Amino acid sequence: MMQHVYDFNEGSLEMKELLGGKGSNLAEMTRLDLPVPKGFVITTATCIDYLEQGEELDAMTQSEINAALIRLEESSGKGFSDTENLLLVSVRSGATISMPGMMDTILNVGLNDANVARFAQITQDERFAYDCYRRLLQMYGNVVYGIDMKHFDNILNQVKRNKRYSQDFELTAEDLKAIIDQYKDIYMEIAGKAFPQDVKAQIMGAVEAVFKSWNNDRAKIYRKLNNIPDSIGTAVTIQEMVFGNKNEESGTGVLFTRNPSTGEDQLYGEFLLNAQGEDVVAGIRTPISINRLNESMPEIYTELLDMTNKLEQHYKDMQDVEFTIEDRKLHLLQTRNGKRGAKSAFKIAADFVNEGILTKEEALLTIDPESINQLLHPTFDEKDLAQAELVTDNGLPASPGAATGHIVFDAETAKEWSELGKPVILVRHETSPEDIEGMSVSEAIVTNHGGMTSHAAVVARGMGKCCVAGCDVLEINEEQKSLRYPGGSLIEGDIISVDGDTGSLYVGAIQTRNSDLDENYHTVMSWANDIATVKVRMNAETPLDIQAGLDFGATGIGLVRTEHMFFQPEPLSELRRFILSNSDNERKDALESILIHQQNDFREIFELIQDKPTVIRLLDMPLHEFLPNSKQDIEIVASQQNVSVEDISQRLTGLKELNPMLGHRGCRLAMTYPGLYLMQAEAIMLAAIELNNKDIAVKPEIMIPLVSTERETAYLREMIQERIEALLEEHQVQLAYTIGAMIETPRASLIADKIAQHSDFCSFGTNDLTQMAFGYSRDDAGKFLNQYVNEGVLAYDPFQRVDEEGVGALLQIAIENIKKVNSTMKLGICGEHGGNPKSVELFASLGFSYVSCSPYRIPIAQMSVAQSAIKLKQ
Amino acid sequence: MMQHVYDFNEGSLEMKELLGGKGSNLAEMTRLDLPVPKGFVITTATCIDYLEQGEELDAMTQSEINAALIRLEESSGKGFSDTENLLLVSVRSGATISMPGMMDTILNVGLNDANVARFAQITQDERFAYDCYRRLLQMYGNVVYGIDMKHFDNILNQVKRNKRYSQDFELTAEDLKAIIDQYKDIYMEIAGKAFPQDVKAQIMGAVEAVFKSWNNDRAKIYRKLNNIPDSIGTAVTIQEMVFGNKNEESGTGVLFTRNPSTGEDQLYGEFLLNAQGEDVVAGIRTPISINRLNESMPEIYTELLDMTNKLEQHYKDMQDVEFTIEDRKLHLLQTRNGKRGAKSAFKIAADFVNEGILTKEEALLTIDPESINQLLHPTFDEKDLAQAELVTDNGLPASPGAATGHIVFDAETAKEWSELGKPVILVRHETSPEDIEGMSVSEAIVTNHGGMTSHAAVVARGMGKCCVAGCDVLEINEEQKSLRYPGGSLIEGDIISVDGDTGSLYVGAIQTRNSDLDENYHTVMSWANDIATVKVRMNAETPLDIQAGLDFGATGIGLVRTEHMFFQPEPLSELRRFILSNSDNERKDALESILIHQQNDFREIFELIQDKPTVIRLLDMPLHEFLPNSKQDIEIVASQQNVSVEDISQRLTGLKELNPMLGHRGCRLAMTYPGLYLMQAEAIMLAAIELNNKDIAVKPEIMIPLVSTERETAYLREMIQERIEALLEEHQVQLAYTIGAMIETPRASLIADKIAQHSDFCSFGTNDLTQMAFGYSRDDAGKFLNQYVNEGVLAYDPFQRVDEEGVGALLQIAIENIKKVNSTMKLGICGEHGGNPKSVELFASLGFSYVSCSPYRIPIAQMSVAQSAIKLKQ
Repeated sequence: MMQHVYDFNEGSLEMKELLGGKGSNLAEMTRLDLPVPKGFVITTATCIDYLEQGEELDAMTQSEINAALIRLEESSGKGFSDTENLLLVSVRSGATISMPGMMDTILNVGLNDANVARFAQITQDERFAYDCYRRLLQMYGNVVYGIDMKHFDNILNQVKRNKRYSQDFELTAEDLKAIIDQYKDIYMEIAGKAFPQDVKAQIMGAVEAVFKSWNNDRAKIYRKLNNIPDSIGTAVTIQEMVFGNKNEESGTGVLFTRNPSTGEDQLYGEFLLNAQGEDVVAGIRTPISINRLNESMPEIYTELLDMTNKLEQHYKDMQDVEFTIEDRKLHLLQTRNGKRGAKSAFKIAADFVNEGILTKEEALLTIDPESINQLLHPTFDEKDLAQAELVTDNGLPASPGAATGHIVFDAETAKEWSELGKPVILVRHETSPEDIEGMSVSEAIVTNHGGMTSHAAVVARGMGKCCVAGCDVLEINEEQKSLRYPGGSLIEGDIISVDGDTGSLYVGAIQTRNSDLDENYHTVMSWANDIATVKVRMNAETPLDIQAGLDFGATGIGLVRTEHMFFQPEPLSELRRFILSNSDNERKDALESILIHQQNDFREIFELIQDKPTVIRLLDMPLHEFLPNSKQDIEIVASQQNVSVEDISQRLTGLKELNPMLGHRGCRLAMTYPGLYLMQAEAIMLAAIELNNKDIAVKPEIMIPLVSTERETAYLREMIQERIEALLEEHQVQLAYTIGAMIETPRASLIADKIAQHSDFCSFGTNDLTQMAFGYSRDDAGKFLNQYVNEGVLAYDPFQRVDEEGVGALLQIAIENIKKVNSTMKLGICGEHGGNPKSVELFASLGFSYVSCSPYRIPIAQMSVAQSAIKLKQ
Repeated sequence: MMQHVYDFNEGSLEMKELLGGKGSNLAEMTRLDLPVPKGFVITTATCIDYLEQGEELDAMTQSEINAALIRLEESSGKGFSDTENLLLVSVRSGATISMPGMMDTILNVGLNDANVARFAQITQDERFAYDCYRRLLQMYGNVVYGIDMKHFDNILNQVKRNKRYSQDFELTAEDLKAIIDQYKDIYMEIAGKAFPQDVKAQIMGAVEAVFKSWNNDRAKIYRKLNNIPDSIGTAVTIQEMVFGNKNEESGTGVLFTRNPSTGEDQLYGEFLLNAQGEDVVAGIRTPISINRLNESMPEIYTELLDMTNKLEQHYKDMQDVEFTIEDRKLHLLQTRNGKRGAKSAFKIAADFVNEGILTKEEALLTIDPESINQLLHPTFDEKDLAQAELVTDNGLPASPGAATGHIVFDAETAKEWSELGKPVILVRHETSPEDIEGMSVSEAIVTNHGGMTSHAAVVARGMGKCCVAGCDVLEINEEQKSLRYPGGSLIEGDIISVDGDTGSLYVGAIQTRNSDLDENYHTVMSWANDIATVKVRMNAETPLDIQAGLDFGATGIGLVRTEHMFFQPEPLSELRRFILSNSDNERKDALESILIHQQNDFREIFELIQDKPTVIRLLDMPLHEFLPNSKQDIEIVASQQNVSVEDISQRLTGLKELNPMLGHRGCRLAMTYPGLYLMQAEAIMLAAIELNNKDIAVKPEIMIPLVSTERETAYLREMIQERIEALLEEHQVQLAYTIGAMIETPRASLIADKIAQHSDFCSFGTNDLTQMAFGYSRDDAGKFLNQYVNEGVLAYDPFQRVDEEGVGALLQIAIENIKKVNSTMKLGICGEHGGNPKSVELFASLGFSYVSCSPYRIPIAQMSVAQSAIKLKQ
């Protein structure tokens, strides 16, 4: 026969499915002999039966509840009709999966007309007692009888108006008694029945109401959006209430078992004597540091220390504990793993290992990889931030960090001002490759178009620079050099502060604080790197970025974007000559001159990266992105190139594409202009030969982007290889190099085995793969993607975290097929997802050899691959 | 022990792998006792052995060849040294898979200094004999000794210059003798060896040269591009030469066993007495109709009739035959299935079934579905066409047909002129929805951007109107109303002719010819429709199109594109009001007014289609496509809508997308503006209710486009269903309707089982699927796609024929998964591929329930589904 009711001391955390999260946690603490107020749980299975059987509590359940209530009176030493020790209870819902705020809770159950005065005596606070009763009536009326809250609010507000009160706490006990009378009238008027004065009737009604609340609209929608089955039901926890406001020997508080900011091993928290939790929140009295408890109640403080040690040992994590003291008796009301900052997370992890509480592997799993960001970038001073005037908080936190500076609306001004020593914030509709230099000298970048993987976002992350993107409430007027936002407007030169961690902008300067990487960080990260099997490389091409990546311990470069090198004036001008020319000879000339620049670029990279493997992606961007856009730029280029403005305009029209993302780019360029890739391959190998002559064996891995067919892969691979072999022959050297394919179209994923037959390695571009799998342009998706994520249509933004269902399926098909033809092939990820923890977990489980991400995400990726390795072992 | 050499009478067609295509075909004819000049085949396996074993003919093969040559002398009654009956042979390559022109052939082998004069006597043509010898020397020198052709050409040209000849045939026998002497010098100078006077040495050399030609560069590339394995090798056919120019009792000719234009059952062809095949080609003498052979050589004519009957019975198809008569003896040199026009194909198919040669199923397989196009559209008169001046032949044959008219460069002028009765050809960079009216009044549409599935192409095919797209050699200047092409220029009003079957444009008018559908067509198509299992629907929304589709026998509508209805001024204006408004009330107002238009549109469709199932796709296009583009249009709309020009411009900027193809369109619109789809669903059902009141049970199938996630499908389906149910409740009617999803993103294909759980049917949009799988924008891919197809990087244009490897894999994954959750779900195709024969074959094999295509491709699709059904049965 099914047991419907479990006392706390009958349960444990393992019974979470039956007792719910809250109930099983209270049972677990009870099992640990911790002083938890007594209580019992009505199981989730009972809820389901109740809902399925016409919403009636069966006799068996009722009798079990009644028996449990009798046991509760005994174990608590209180009674529902005991005038000395009045027993009141809370009735709370608690499903197995947390659904915060979705279902109902009723406190102070047990009060009635007969015992409320006695309760006033016990708590020595008449106002408090009647307020509890008022609240019980209000909650009960709403939850159990479905009386609209507005009826109660009207009465309360009427009284406050009459008495000219502005706050609830100004209500006196007499006021409350009058309100209670009026509330009772509401019961009769609206629900047609009185508030049950019988305690058991109160409890049965409350239990049924909690069960029913499982199927209220809010809860149903929440479950739908969060993929929680309807069939699991909620448990009901009934627990003795304890009162921290009973007298001066009572109190209430919250604490962390260690300092959540620094990780220091000492209690951290606050308490108030003769108070309830509410009083802390209301802010009328200032709470006292937990350490002062040692002065007022040293025995309780010692008891707390013991208990928190016990909790840490048991839960193997730093705890966040709620407690109440009633008559010098300590009660624990809740414990859970404590949230903490990154700095403290590393210290706690290191300490727990030293203290023997955790193994290194367990300790690594306590670190939220994403939080490491906090350690790598400056952040705003919290106090300053609290007082700052908000411009908007609707931007996307595209690249972390915090910065203050003068607004500029174009890259040119950014350069001029920064040369004069003025810190600038570059604000644009969206950035383009021509803004790169301006971006690099700015403190932060702000855009009102584009998402987390827009040009601005990607480049900023690459630079480790703060960026807020897609901030669409800003009306930016680039020509007038001004912007409007809902609360005002700003012009060039005005100072703003940009928070890349939250996506918020503020008026004026805010003090920033640099974080640094301490010993704990290095200790714990060294464990991570020892355990990891998947390597972490960087996406980088500038010396600054490469050095940053090396400092973070990148094992190589997973992506050199060669187009970024063309935003130096000279190679750009030569590339434009190549594009605009109609003569084969001039094209050849232009390529020869570009070759020299490229060779220099590659030499610079190789000199830094030395013998670490380096994936160099050949030109990927459509050619028109290298041509000028504005009338003025077109004129300048025309005179530089000695062609007419019409020629350029015509060429621009010819190159214009409706959907450039799906256009003439990537290896398609090389099919049309083979010279481009041959020149790049030659430049790479010439640079490699230079280093080889200095006895440095570089490892270039040449990558052909955007392949979709086997034949283009085979054709280009052979073409490049032939040129390289001829070059090596000519220079009489032998050099290791590989040629691989970038798999970033769905079709390439589907035929990856065929592509792999012509590739020494395959690297997956999950950004483009995501765009094409969903049919979402990352530049445009902002219009609906935020809505999709907010409304739960998508569980998460697939440009931030790789989509497991769709893109994951493509990766899996690709890898399974590749392994069939080449079980040892080197497989990498070079999209932005390479720095996202959940994505890295998927990549690791699929068997990738390495992930690559922007330098400032390398530590996050390193922690993620370590955690993935541990989880896969488990 | 392996046999290296087979006489013709030892082989058959079934030995194609060993004897090659040519050899096995000659063997087959020999086996049928047809008078084929005697010969033998050296096997493909011998070729491979030869190439693998250091390119030396082993003793065994040599002795087999020698033996075969002796047998050949016997069976032909001629001899290599027989001065009365001189035996000459041809040495030809012939692989199992045809590789036209890729490998070498040598004729007249056996001639030498000693017998050439005798040969002149036999053929009674000294000039001919020495010319044969000259050609032998030239071919042999080039093929066997690798002497560059230019050396021979130089000598020939020098003689012609000296003699002031302009044509080769002016050379006299004496000239040729002198040339032959000089050719022999070339042998010594370049190759260092003389032309072999020994016949067997000639033959062995020729055989080796043919074997070696298997590995020449041209052949290797051809095989690579056509996926022909290198390992199959080529056979060598050695065959007695016969001479139609021996005397007046000799001759040569070609014939079709039936008339290839009309299908009439009588010999059709030409012959020349005392002539070689070359003489027909050279055009010096006019060939005579084959029927006249009955006059000059009635016994030969009768023999030919018998033989061709035998061939048709044996090959079960109309044959294209080459023959030579030598001394009143008939020799068949080749037979193959004859190419024919569509009209004759249907007649021949019908006749062959009547004559008992073919079953209906076999007859259906003889029809090339694509050729049916010829019957559905006007074509140019062939004679006129031959004389017309070409503008260009580089356009894409985007929609079949032929038309002549005056060039106009804008839709407005098209309308004005056509109202005045002037036929016009609309020439534009590319068309947009605003050109629709202008397109509908034009005789043909020409664009220089865009591919086979560009707007112009799709709309033109839908209208059954001739279109040439992507004609990129045209430099169109829309403002100056002129165009330039490599050979000249044209202005507004000039007359051109457009051939939508070939993609060519011509200067001036060309006579067109209408084709019609005759009895044979209807007979054969009725067999097709009886056999087919996959249904054929139409993509259509205008009354004209729907009527056309019904006339062709469409079983329903597979795609109503609801956006096409917004190109009427009134609903467009209301939709613009919806888009431009910021007030919810005004939006509601606009929708209410659009509802009435939509309801009318749907009623019109239902009245035509009656109870046939009708898939209606809800709004798919991005909203900005409905807004004006040009400054002038913006001003007009601003005044219509009573908003400022800036407002519209700002809204346009806000809606602008970098990659609209991957942007805010399809069901994403409905997630943001649910009212749009609810209005459309309501309009559909209100129209259905109207018809229901007239006792017509229409079958609306409401389709949600561009889904990528399960939740958006579920959400929209529920939302629409709820509204419809409320509406039916309100009207107190019960109506059948279904709601399904359009699967057109790779992700949707990968999770199709999940989408199917919320769909009554699924229809696959293979156009978008192709775009996203490859990452090819169909509007932009023209820049490289033609090159990809021409160079064999892609075996075919994936926008015309569905890509089996990639897109096919997505379809297969989708269907397998859908069948797991719903084995009876209705599955359709509504992309342009639904009218492409090869694609239809794939769809049929994957288990689709129906395909849908534009009305004028329905007969093609019907034939294709019939053929697929037959092939699947086999």
